[in-house]
Amino acid sequence: MQISELGEFNLIKRLTEGVKLQNSSSERGIGDDCAVMNYGDKRLLATTDVLLEGIHFDLTYTPLKHLGYKAAVVNFSDIYAMNGQPKQILVTVGISKRFEVEQIEELYRGILLACQKYKVDLIGGDTSASLTGLTISITCLGEGESDKIVYRNGAKVTDLVCVSGNLGASYMGLQLLEREKQVFQQVKDPDFQPDFSTKEYVLERQLKPEARRDIISELAKHNIQPTSMIDVSDGLSSEIMHICTQSGCGCEVYEDKIPIDYQTAVTAEEFNMNLTTVALNGGEDYELLFTAPLADYDKLKNIDDLHIIGHITKPENGMLLITRDGQSIAFKAQGWNSLEK
Amino acid sequence: MQISELGEFNLIKRLTEGVKLQNSSSERGIGDDCAVMNYGDKRLLATTDVLLEGIHFDLTYTPLKHLGYKAAVVNFSDIYAMNGQPKQILVTVGISKRFEVEQIEELYRGILLACQKYKVDLIGGDTSASLTGLTISITCLGEGESDKIVYRNGAKVTDLVCVSGNLGASYMGLQLLEREKQVFQQVKDPDFQPDFSTKEYVLERQLKPEARRDIISELAKHNIQPTSMIDVSDGLSSEIMHICTQSGCGCEVYEDKIPIDYQTAVTAEEFNMNLTTVALNGGEDYELLFTAPLADYDKLKNIDDLHIIGHITKPENGMLLITRDGQSIAFKAQGWNSLEK
Repeated sequence: MQISELGEFNLIKRLTEGVKLQNSSSERGIGDDCAVMNYGDKRLLATTDVLLEGIHFDLTYTPLKHLGYKAAVVNFSDIYAMNGQPKQILVTVGISKRFEVEQIEELYRGILLACQKYKVDLIGGDTSASLTGLTISITCLGEGESDKIVYRNGAKVTDLVCVSGNLGASYMGLQLLEREKQVFQQVKDPDFQPDFSTKEYVLERQLKPEARRDIISELAKHNIQPTSMIDVSDGLSSEIMHICTQSGCGCEVYEDKIPIDYQTAVTAEEFNMNLTTVALNGGEDYELLFTAPLADYDKLKNIDDLHIIGHITKPENGMLLITRDGQSIAFKAQGWNSLEK
Repeated sequence: MQISELGEFNLIKRLTEGVKLQNSSSERGIGDDCAVMNYGDKRLLATTDVLLEGIHFDLTYTPLKHLGYKAAVVNFSDIYAMNGQPKQILVTVGISKRFEVEQIEELYRGILLACQKYKVDLIGGDTSASLTGLTISITCLGEGESDKIVYRNGAKVTDLVCVSGNLGASYMGLQLLEREKQVFQQVKDPDFQPDFSTKEYVLERQLKPEARRDIISELAKHNIQPTSMIDVSDGLSSEIMHICTQSGCGCEVYEDKIPIDYQTAVTAEEFNMNLTTVALNGGEDYELLFTAPLADYDKLKNIDDLHIIGHITKPENGMLLITRDGQSIAFKAQGWNSLEK
């Protein structure tokens, strides 16, 4: 059977069904942003992400330092999504012959910059020749308090659905970069300079994303314990479905509450793309999507850059987007296709 | 600068110099078989290894189930080399289009078989499309007691140098497989069957290696605490130099004490290769090389499949191989070149 027939989620499911945890320190395995291990009062968190050239990044427009930074940050984001703190990373790099030492140093400079900013230690890894492109695989370890770890499966009926920052910016940044790459290939002028002025924000969201450590610390400061949480890497649509499916509940998310930056809106307009589709399915936002008790409403609404976008319902209600004109549309697996062009 | 000018060890050194550990849980970073983290009484161990198609394996003669098994076991071996027990793995796989679901299932069957045998839990990972070959990156976590962890840097003058099992078998297995691949390509007969009879052992050492959990438990049973330890992945020559350099000492290793299996000897003869070179530089043995106090001599000599091959000396003595005819020859970095054909 072709892997494309199954899709990534089903492939993982098929490969790992029947896996049983046998060690007492293995508290939670596959199925969340991180695995969780039990070490006394602490919980140890572990997550891993791979970036492969041509699949996850294009070196035509991705500076190696940014790439290193992003490769580290996307792992930190998974740890924050469990309400933990990233502490260590192991970095594995496969390097093809066309790379020089100085380029790999640039990549590491980006990784180490992210480590410095987020107070994470580079503790090990593996370096190998590669016959083809550049491969970066990072494993991140983190810590959390046993009673503070947040899973995807704890959302309760009447909980509020919240998301940090804004959505769709990274995706529009990618569209811009891809368009300018095509223009560059057509004009064949080595001095060609793409015009990205007024688009700096969406480009930065794509090339140098940040993880929302600030939101985690705001939640702690306000004594808010999310009931479920996930980071938005595949798009809001896909992530809210993970939360609802694993929590056994439904949801209503209001289209007019979904936070979108002005530059994202202008760029989507330029590309003639539906803005809600971009925000729901763009992905690579690395914002935090979480649910919290209704009783925390007053505390939540005072946190900067945080948005209440809906609420959790009984499962029989379904997982619904309530559009601006009051229609209810079901979220769909792997993205919300009904608005797609 | 070309990466080949630097070599892997120097590249890692250059990329990671200036890395300082800033978290209290990060006890030991880069420079040993595993990183070590401090969680109360326990020490958490972490190691990662990547296998890239065309560099580390050739699917012409490597069954996917064996490949999965080996990818897991080589990580377990790094944990045992710290005197720890492997507990969890995270598995990242990059899959190109030419693979079918059933093939990736075979790979995972091998990984899970190794997990079952070594009592390790598969707790997470990442699965991605790959534009080119198969990529397997595994991170292994393990546990050890804080006063039992063994580093590379604790060897003391007069300590005995010991190695488990035998050396060079895996390398000769690889030579056989490579030769039969070439024959197969020349005859162009799809029904061609290589004749591997009487060579099963060296092939198994290459295709389905085991990690020496049994040696770790024997050492514990006999109450022997090694002063330094490393697993033999790059060859005895390279590993003994790691121990001596990091411990600030010299060594004398006796050529006639180096354990070599009969099949390895016969195959090396067939290939007209110097047997000592094969044993010293072949690599992929995944045996344990360690040092232990001279006072443990009587206990060590009674452990099955364990060999005392030399002793630790003052640093000014150098790192020496004492040949059968009594000559002293210095081990060389990246392998011991003087015997090479």
